Amino acid sequence: MFEAVNQATALSKQDFETEVQEVRTELLKAQYTLQETNISVITIIAGVEGAGKSDVVNRFNEWMDTRWIRNHAFWDETDEERQRPAKWRFWRTFPPRGQMAVLFGSWYTHHIINCALGKTSSDHLDVQMQHVEQLERMLTDDNHLVVKLWFHLSPEMQQKRIKGKDKHRLTKLAKKFAKHYDDFLQTSERAIRLTDTGNAPWFLINAEQERYRDITAAKILLQQLQAALNKQTNDQPVRSKQEHARRFTLDSPTILDELNLDECRLSKKEYKKQLDHYQKKLSQLGWQARDARRSVVCVFEGWDAGGKGGAIRRVTRALDARLYSVISVAAPTDEERARHYLWRFWRQLPRDGYITIYDRSWYGRVLVERVEGLAAEEEWMRSYQEINDFEEQQHLHGTVVTKFWLHISADEQLRRFREREATPWKRHKITDEDWRNRENWDQYAAAVNDMVARTSTSEAPWVIVPANDKKYARVYVLKTLCQRIETALEQSSS
Amino acid sequence: MFEAVNQATALSKQDFETEVQEVRTELLKAQYTLQETNISVITIIAGVEGAGKSDVVNRFNEWMDTRWIRNHAFWDETDEERQRPAKWRFWRTFPPRGQMAVLFGSWYTHHIINCALGKTSSDHLDVQMQHVEQLERMLTDDNHLVVKLWFHLSPEMQQKRIKGKDKHRLTKLAKKFAKHYDDFLQTSERAIRLTDTGNAPWFLINAEQERYRDITAAKILLQQLQAALNKQTNDQPVRSKQEHARRFTLDSPTILDELNLDECRLSKKEYKKQLDHYQKKLSQLGWQARDARRSVVCVFEGWDAGGKGGAIRRVTRALDARLYSVISVAAPTDEERARHYLWRFWRQLPRDGYITIYDRSWYGRVLVERVEGLAAEEEWMRSYQEINDFEEQQHLHGTVVTKFWLHISADEQLRRFREREATPWKRHKITDEDWRNRENWDQYAAAVNDMVARTSTSEAPWVIVPANDKKYARVYVLKTLCQRIETALEQSSS
Repeated sequence: MFEAVNQATALSKQDFETEVQEVRTELLKAQYTLQETNISVITIIAGVEGAGKSDVVNRFNEWMDTRWIRNHAFWDETDEERQRPAKWRFWRTFPPRGQMAVLFGSWYTHHIINCALGKTSSDHLDVQMQHVEQLERMLTDDNHLVVKLWFHLSPEMQQKRIKGKDKHRLTKLAKKFAKHYDDFLQTSERAIRLTDTGNAPWFLINAEQERYRDITAAKILLQQLQAALNKQTNDQPVRSKQEHARRFTLDSPTILDELNLDECRLSKKEYKKQLDHYQKKLSQLGWQARDARRSVVCVFEGWDAGGKGGAIRRVTRALDARLYSVISVAAPTDEERARHYLWRFWRQLPRDGYITIYDRSWYGRVLVERVEGLAAEEEWMRSYQEINDFEEQQHLHGTVVTKFWLHISADEQLRRFREREATPWKRHKITDEDWRNRENWDQYAAAVNDMVARTSTSEAPWVIVPANDKKYARVYVLKTLCQRIETALEQSSS
Repeated sequence: MFEAVNQATALSKQDFETEVQEVRTELLKAQYTLQETNISVITIIAGVEGAGKSDVVNRFNEWMDTRWIRNHAFWDETDEERQRPAKWRFWRTFPPRGQMAVLFGSWYTHHIINCALGKTSSDHLDVQMQHVEQLERMLTDDNHLVVKLWFHLSPEMQQKRIKGKDKHRLTKLAKKFAKHYDDFLQTSERAIRLTDTGNAPWFLINAEQERYRDITAAKILLQQLQAALNKQTNDQPVRSKQEHARRFTLDSPTILDELNLDECRLSKKEYKKQLDHYQKKLSQLGWQARDARRSVVCVFEGWDAGGKGGAIRRVTRALDARLYSVISVAAPTDEERARHYLWRFWRQLPRDGYITIYDRSWYGRVLVERVEGLAAEEEWMRSYQEINDFEEQQHLHGTVVTKFWLHISADEQLRRFREREATPWKRHKITDEDWRNRENWDQYAAAVNDMVARTSTSEAPWVIVPANDKKYARVYVLKTLCQRIETALEQSSS
């Protein structure tokens, strides 16, 4: 693969100057047009040590308008990053729509290095590259342009470069690399091949001559930018609400119909006893999870007036306030709206040992956004996969992921709506929107059914909570949560 | 001081229930009203170990709408926090307007503990409390409501509580506290006294009985909330642009007039030589600062077309792309707009060993916002103090703060504007706004003069760069930056 770019190409100073003028003008133009679009650009700078990646990043900053470009180097990992799923540090840096991020180092670096140095197997690399491919597909599916540049040097040239370098810049790793040039090349080739996809292709650049290297990188970026901008101008997104609605023909019973809501009740006495029991237990488990450095994510979804808030309060009551945070998912801020819909949830993931409780969650995508036609069908359809992947990443990091759907009957909902309207300090909870959502009960039921079918995984199963009786539901939630944490702690200690 | 709350007060269960209904309803109402205002609420939960601070936080979450409340515990400090000025971790948590943050632990905790345990002197405590007072004043000046609750227990009661606690919750620190109860109390009293200000008063609460404690805390919060809401309704902010303008009577020469711009020139040959020299030097210094874990903040301000971008590029060219980031200050996002104007700059402060370059900065407050009347006079007037404090905190942390004003003559600006209009890849840089700003030249000059007079401190001096000749300016910037970093590194190594 690299043979193709082993041969150095040189560019005269004069040709370079002429080309720079042109490329620079066009890049700036493209940046301006980009601003008006909903495209985010992620440029990945990768390649061998000594190829001058840092210089290329500097060039990009020189040639473009720095107002819409941000550089990120993934160098020494902070503990905040280490204590979350591996890709959290990358999600932090994703640019808003209309802007560009230049990533110096990326989700490739770590895996390639470890494999080249023999710390991980090549099978492991393959699996990781699959994850990378998923991530990139998710981004490109969502109007992200991912430009991947690989800077190559022949072994002789690399040796020469590394020897000539400032001692400060010559890390131990760089020396190691030079020794393992062949391993590194072979691993890189494999990683590149596995992730050289149509939606996010790799570009290999010979980095021997600086002028050629920089102008080539800039031209590739420009060409990719222009292609993305043209594509968007020509695309005519068609989104019809009627079309969505047609999908909701609910003849067969859903998973929700299987619950016998009326049987799931607790007496007041039994409730108090069990509540107390499981709250005490959860309190201990919260501290044990903290000691074991395991994080917990709890998702609460359910019908309006299903009792999410009450259940959450029974959970938090048992926990030390230092250990948890509750994220009430409301309208996204503009920083959130300008990014992939999962970005706002990545943002809030707990550090090791802590608990994040989501009052509504990323499942809004396949519930309200689907039913109300706020997301296009291809958007919410692909989000099942994206969500599973998101939760798998949490699981792989060691996070205990638990998801509750608080289920009530339509009659019970009506009763609660009326009660809310009658209670002064509950009145604010009931809005016109709630009544509107109620009209779409069947469509929501279908959406819930699909959601559970497609996103209940062994790592992050859905727990359907019979919630016509609040007491029963609260105890059920506490009990399940205790079980989930307990099981996870047992597995990790054995 | 604490004698006043040594006597426990009890509340019957029935009275409690009645009061809860009322307080809860009113709290929710206040939260709703709050949303529509530009008030941010910061509630500080402090006090002795064993007083049940965690339970109070849980109560607040139970009684209020969690959509507009966020808890933050300042517990184990992360390395990202440690590697920035001490208050960075608090700034991270400040709530947007209309919302509330409950801080469990705060800017008091650390200082009180260290002083009580004899690790720091009481003089040191006094100085720190002055900083705290400044911070709180800055917040309350900017429509923040700061509610400070101190939960008190008598020594006997504290012993009892601590002994009865779950072993997990009983940290080593708690045991230490119990032993040093008197020291802790004395230190706390001093800290409270020094920071018990009219704008952010302390409230002491006897925490012996849970019911009394929780309802009292909630009532104080409610009363403070209501007072702030009423105050805002009655305030009629008057802001007249004319009034601002009247302050600009520029008769005396400004600091800028003292520069002899025409003399500050460099030949092309000399420029190349010196540029090369200082870029090499800066490159080394960048790595040395990294090794020494010193961070660098560079602020670039100057006339439109003053050459900020060009100077910044000559700086970044010398640096490894992993070491720096350039923040181009444009319109704030809504998350930024919803907070104190310094929040967006705190956000971007570099970690130890890294460099942040601000292309425009917090000085916009006393420049464009002042001249254009975007900030009220009392706002920009007090911001000199706030800015000095902000930069002092960076300095105290070990950050090298350097501020450049790129100064050109009005004639030179005109020449550059015209040149920009004629150059294809520079054309985008010149807008109608630039021409408009030019008309206010004298008012900007007055603002610059005041800015330099009020914010050029020994820790963070202003560097006025004669910039009619770009070559001279770039070398001057590089040279000064090298000197500043070099001096700082010498001081820290000696």
